[in-house]
Amino acid sequence: MYELILLRHGRSQWNEKNIFTGWHDCPLAEAGRDEARRAGELMAASGLRVEAVHTSVLQRAIETAEIALAAAGRRWIPVRRSWRLNERHYGDLTGLDKADTSARHGAEQVRIWRRSFQVAPPPIRAGHPWDPAGDPAYAELAPELVPRTESLADVTARLLPYWHDAVAPDLRAGRAVLVSAHGNSLRALVKHLDGIGDDEIAAVDLPTGLPLLYRLGEDLAPIEAAEPLERALGPGSAASLGPR
Amino acid sequence: MYELILLRHGRSQWNEKNIFTGWHDCPLAEAGRDEARRAGELMAASGLRVEAVHTSVLQRAIETAEIALAAAGRRWIPVRRSWRLNERHYGDLTGLDKADTSARHGAEQVRIWRRSFQVAPPPIRAGHPWDPAGDPAYAELAPELVPRTESLADVTARLLPYWHDAVAPDLRAGRAVLVSAHGNSLRALVKHLDGIGDDEIAAVDLPTGLPLLYRLGEDLAPIEAAEPLERALGPGSAASLGPR
Repeated sequence: MYELILLRHGRSQWNEKNIFTGWHDCPLAEAGRDEARRAGELMAASGLRVEAVHTSVLQRAIETAEIALAAAGRRWIPVRRSWRLNERHYGDLTGLDKADTSARHGAEQVRIWRRSFQVAPPPIRAGHPWDPAGDPAYAELAPELVPRTESLADVTARLLPYWHDAVAPDLRAGRAVLVSAHGNSLRALVKHLDGIGDDEIAAVDLPTGLPLLYRLGEDLAPIEAAEPLERALGPGSAASLGPR
Repeated sequence: MYELILLRHGRSQWNEKNIFTGWHDCPLAEAGRDEARRAGELMAASGLRVEAVHTSVLQRAIETAEIALAAAGRRWIPVRRSWRLNERHYGDLTGLDKADTSARHGAEQVRIWRRSFQVAPPPIRAGHPWDPAGDPAYAELAPELVPRTESLADVTARLLPYWHDAVAPDLRAGRAVLVSAHGNSLRALVKHLDGIGDDEIAAVDLPTGLPLLYRLGEDLAPIEAAEPLERALGPGSAASLGPR
């Protein structure tokens, strides 16, 4: 049985301002740091020993993993980062207030942009103040791979190669793996793992800062429904917690 | 020309108590976090863009890198960790007060243990309260590779394979590399890079928290003496500092 923990980063500064963030590299808010600490304490108390961590290249996911692993006493585990775990690129909505956007385009249109599988927001305009395309984090990436906007389908397509080539081998090596990422990149992963349909995924939303535990079989399919780590704690599981 | 930055972690809680630390996984002191932040600010101000980071598996080096890279706006770069970058194992001196040890064994004996190339402290006793051998960080390592004590010669022998196999390829790929490690593991690396003799290395001591910049040629030998980053700042170098 393989163990996979999905962790959606804690609240960011733009989450607190209710702004579409996407690939903008917004820092965590203090409340998000608290969520990350609590996530690490939950991991430690569960007796789960995470043995490898994968993050996006966005600092809110990186810092969430750093804080959680520090709180869990597992700072030393190997870490890999990839743009393929990034949040969905919100295109021209990046930097816009969500309420303003609803007022202008209608709540239904915004719901479709936020939750549908196939529909992407309009591409980010050239010269957009929050265009991340020139960010040095993507300097080694082929320019045609840097998106101008993304649907959840696009996210799934760019995420799955990393899942298969980087995360799955860690699991198959017997390591408990933590993936610290984002609302939409984790929705794409959950859709894949649980075989959720294109329409049904609209109803799925992961809580921030709460580790979600998947127990996977040989074929890396879930052998039971994923559980938030709080509920996953079995009786006496804390007794297996070691000194570190 | 390749760029390599060596960073000795900031002051730890045991540094502040004047205790031999070695492989004990002591956290940074607040003063050490401040040093790490200053190191990152220096890196940013220098215009140097670190593109890969290597750390030991000890949290004082890991946290130093995390804080410095956050301050430099380079959190997203790839990171690798290895026990081969760990501090020298201080054997049975681990956890002892340095002044007490000098009073008991004499200042000259302690100087030899601390600075000589060939002499290792006595091996750590079985059942020693600070024995790191059972630490989960070393669970995947062959037991015979986990030291009971180390001389600087031992450190050099276990560090160089990582230098050649992990750090050097990053440099040859054209990446500016940060190594966040420890007083003695960095002395071993400096000894190798600068071709310092076994006797002369006793006089070498790196400052904590101050990035040391090596400019290396094709053969990965220094093309000039390493410089602390403050002095290495050329006129106008800060002008090349990008938005991130």
